[in-house]
Amino acid sequence: MNLVAPVNIVELLRQLREGDGALQNEIARVLQRIREAEPTLKAFIDEPGREQRLMKQAAALESEYADRAKRPPLYGLLIGVKDLFRVDGFETRAGSRLSAELFAGQQASSVTRLVEAGALVAGKTVTTEFAYFSPGPTRNPWNPEHTPGGSSSGSAAAVAAGMCHAALGTQTIGSVIRPAAFCGIVGYKPSFGRITTDGVFPFSVSADHVGVFASDVAGVARLAAVLCRPWNHKAAAREPVHKKSVVAVPCERYLAQADAGARRAFERGLERLANGGARIEQSSLLDDIDQINAAHNDMIAAEFAQVHAAWFDKQRKRYSETSAELVQRGREVDSQRVSQARQDRSRLRERITQESERLGASLWASPASASAAPRGIEATGSPIMNLPWTYAGVPALTVPCGLSEDGLPLGLQLCGCYEGDEALVARAARIEAILAASSDD
Amino acid sequence: MNLVAPVNIVELLRQLREGDGALQNEIARVLQRIREAEPTLKAFIDEPGREQRLMKQAAALESEYADRAKRPPLYGLLIGVKDLFRVDGFETRAGSRLSAELFAGQQASSVTRLVEAGALVAGKTVTTEFAYFSPGPTRNPWNPEHTPGGSSSGSAAAVAAGMCHAALGTQTIGSVIRPAAFCGIVGYKPSFGRITTDGVFPFSVSADHVGVFASDVAGVARLAAVLCRPWNHKAAAREPVHKKSVVAVPCERYLAQADAGARRAFERGLERLANGGARIEQSSLLDDIDQINAAHNDMIAAEFAQVHAAWFDKQRKRYSETSAELVQRGREVDSQRVSQARQDRSRLRERITQESERLGASLWASPASASAAPRGIEATGSPIMNLPWTYAGVPALTVPCGLSEDGLPLGLQLCGCYEGDEALVARAARIEAILAASSDD
Repeated sequence: MNLVAPVNIVELLRQLREGDGALQNEIARVLQRIREAEPTLKAFIDEPGREQRLMKQAAALESEYADRAKRPPLYGLLIGVKDLFRVDGFETRAGSRLSAELFAGQQASSVTRLVEAGALVAGKTVTTEFAYFSPGPTRNPWNPEHTPGGSSSGSAAAVAAGMCHAALGTQTIGSVIRPAAFCGIVGYKPSFGRITTDGVFPFSVSADHVGVFASDVAGVARLAAVLCRPWNHKAAAREPVHKKSVVAVPCERYLAQADAGARRAFERGLERLANGGARIEQSSLLDDIDQINAAHNDMIAAEFAQVHAAWFDKQRKRYSETSAELVQRGREVDSQRVSQARQDRSRLRERITQESERLGASLWASPASASAAPRGIEATGSPIMNLPWTYAGVPALTVPCGLSEDGLPLGLQLCGCYEGDEALVARAARIEAILAASSDD
Repeated sequence: MNLVAPVNIVELLRQLREGDGALQNEIARVLQRIREAEPTLKAFIDEPGREQRLMKQAAALESEYADRAKRPPLYGLLIGVKDLFRVDGFETRAGSRLSAELFAGQQASSVTRLVEAGALVAGKTVTTEFAYFSPGPTRNPWNPEHTPGGSSSGSAAAVAAGMCHAALGTQTIGSVIRPAAFCGIVGYKPSFGRITTDGVFPFSVSADHVGVFASDVAGVARLAAVLCRPWNHKAAAREPVHKKSVVAVPCERYLAQADAGARRAFERGLERLANGGARIEQSSLLDDIDQINAAHNDMIAAEFAQVHAAWFDKQRKRYSETSAELVQRGREVDSQRVSQARQDRSRLRERITQESERLGASLWASPASASAAPRGIEATGSPIMNLPWTYAGVPALTVPCGLSEDGLPLGLQLCGCYEGDEALVARAARIEAILAASSDD
C-alpha cells in the first residue's frame, strides 16, 4: 500500500459544495484510509468512536446546508488538529503524561473558525511532548523507518497520508515547516500574531505561531483566508507572478547549517527557479545567525520554564528528560536577556524588509530543513533552518523540492516580509508550479 | 453627590483576599453606587437582574474559595466590559441597531482570563456604534454636561464613578487613552497583539488593541499581569525608577494638534517631571504626522468596510450616518494602499525604538488628548494625539495631569518601545507619583 496520498483540497471542496451525498462518500473514503494507514503511521490520538462521530457530524452538516448556495467555504473539509489545541469534545494532553485537566479550557479560536467555516475535526494528531523534542509514536508516510519530523508530527503525517484533508500545527522553532518538508507536503506559518494562538497550550508565548498543512499552496491559501484575519484577497490576486522576480538567498554562514544533500536539493531548486525566469541574489542577511540562534533559544527556554513553573517541581517525574532539561535551562536565563531578545526580534524583522527592498527581492529562499527526515523515530530532526524566520515572525512556507538520495522529500523554504503573507502565498504557488514542472529533469 | 469616586484596586484586592464576607459587602456597596450614579451617567447596558446575579455569583465565589490561601489574583474584582466583547450570558450589540445574533459567539478570551483570575462581570458598558464615532448616552462623571470620550465611553465613566473596580476597553485610534484622560483615570493599551482580541467584535484587525481602565497605575498593572501573557514581573520590578530618567517629547508638528489648554497642562506636567529629576529631550519624531494620520485612517477605514461587507448593503438603514460614511470611504481605499500601510507600521515602530536609544530616553510623553472633554454628548472628542502610537503598536498609558480651566481632567500620555510594556508601566507609576505630589502647586 502506498502510504503517501495527500488530497487536492481545492478540487475536493468544489465537489463537496456542489454535490449531494458527496460529503458522506468522502468521509467514508477517508475513514477507510485511516483504517489502512493509521496502524503503521500512528498520526492520530486514538478515538474509539471516531467513525460514528464523523458520519453523524457529516449528516448534520449535510442537513444544515441542504441548500448548496449557502455552504460555507470549507464545507466538509476534514482537519487534523495537533493535540496542543483545545477542541470541544476532546481531551488535550499536549503529548504529555500530565493530567488532561491541567490543559482544559475554552476551544481554540482557530479551531472554532475552521468549524464555523464548515470543517469537521478528523481527530487530534500526535505532538511531541509540550511541542518540544520528545517524540510520539508517529512515522513518516514516505518511509516508516524515518521520523515525520516534529513537533506537529501527526498533522504532517496525516495530511501526507490522506488521513485528513488539511491540518493545524504550531511552530515555535521549526515545527510546521520541518515536518511538512519531511513529509513532502506544503506547510505555512503566517506572520507572528496573524492567527490567534488562543486556546493553544503555550510553549513560548513570544514565538508560538499557529500554522497549517495541506497538499499544495492553493489548499494552504484556502485555510489562510479563514484563519488569518484579515486576509487581503485583492492583494493576493494582484501579485505580478508573470513578471520576472528576484529571489534572495541568505548568507553562507546560515546555509552551512544544512547538510550536503539538503544543500544539493536547494541548489537544484534555485537552478529551476532561474530557468523559470527568476533572478537569484545572494545576501549577507543572517551573518549573525549564531547570535540569533542563541537569543531565540534562550527566549523560548525562559518562557517554557515560566509556563511550567507551577507544575514542574510537583510533577517532575512526569516530564521527559528533554523537557525537564529545557525547564532547567530556562530558569537560568536572566529576565533582561529575555526582554532584550523580544525586542531584537523587531530589529531582525526590519532588516529583512530593508534587505528585500535593497535587492528588489520578492521573497527569500532557503533549505526547509538541515537534512531529509533522519532514520528512526527517537528524534525529530533539526529545526535550525527555520529558526531565524520564526524569531523574526515573518511568514514562511515550504514547497516540495526534490528527493534525497534515500528517496525522501526535501522542501524549499520561502519566506516573505512581515505582514506580506498574501504576496508570499501567491508567489509560492508560482514557484510550486515551476518546481513541479521541472521535477523530472 | 460626587459622581467621581474611583476605587483603589490594590488595597481592595488585599482586603477581599484576606477577609471573610468582605466580598459580599463590597458588592453591596458597588451596587448601591450604581443605583445612585447610573441614572445620570448611563455607563452600563441595562441588565434587569444585575443585583441578584452579582450577589449569587459572589456567594458562589466565596464558597469556592473558602480557603483564603487559594484565592486567585483578582478575587472579587468587579469589571465593566465594553459591549464589543462577547461575554457568556450577555448579548453583544457593539452599540449598534443590528440584530444581536450577528455578534454572537464564543466568550472573549480576555474576559475568560479575568474570570478565571477571580473577577466578576459588573456589566456590559456602553460603546459608540461599532467602536467608531457615533456615541451612546453615557456622560462624564466630572461634569455630566460633557462627553466621557469614546469609544470605550461606558468603561471609562463606570470606573471613574466607582460603579465597577476596573474595565476592559478597546483602542483602534484613541478609544482607551482618550476616555481615560477625559474621566481622570488611568488607561493602558499594551503593545499590539499582547492581549488577544479574540472574541471582540472587530473594527480594524490591524489596529484593534484590547486595553484596560483602573483608578491608578498599580491597578492597571494587576490587570496587565493577568491579560498580557507573558508578563515579565522581574523586568517590571527591575526598572531603575530611582535613577534620573530621560523623557522624550515628539516634534511640534504633532504637538500642535492639541489646543492651548491641553498644551499648557502638558507643559506643566513636563515641568513637574523635570523638577522630579527627569531630563526632557525634544525630538523630531512624528515630523511626518500627516502621512501617519492618513495611512492609519485609510487602513482602518478599509478594514472596517471589510468587516461590514456582508451586512452593510442589506441593512444600510440600521447604520448611523457616521459609520455608513466610514464604510463608504473604506471601500474606496486601494488594497495596495492598505498593504503598504500595514507594512509601514513596523517602520514607525522601529523608528521609535531607534530614536529612544539615540536619546537614551526611557519613554515618550505627550498630551493624552487634543483638549479636555468637549461639552455635549453628541461627539466624543478627538483621538488625534493617540493615533501614531496606536498605529505603531507601541504601549501607551495615560496618567492624570492637572485640570483644564473648566475643571475637567487632562492626561499625560506616556508611550514606550514595542514590547517594552513592563518598563513603561513601572516608569508610569513613578511619574504618577511625581505628578500627584505636585498637583497642588
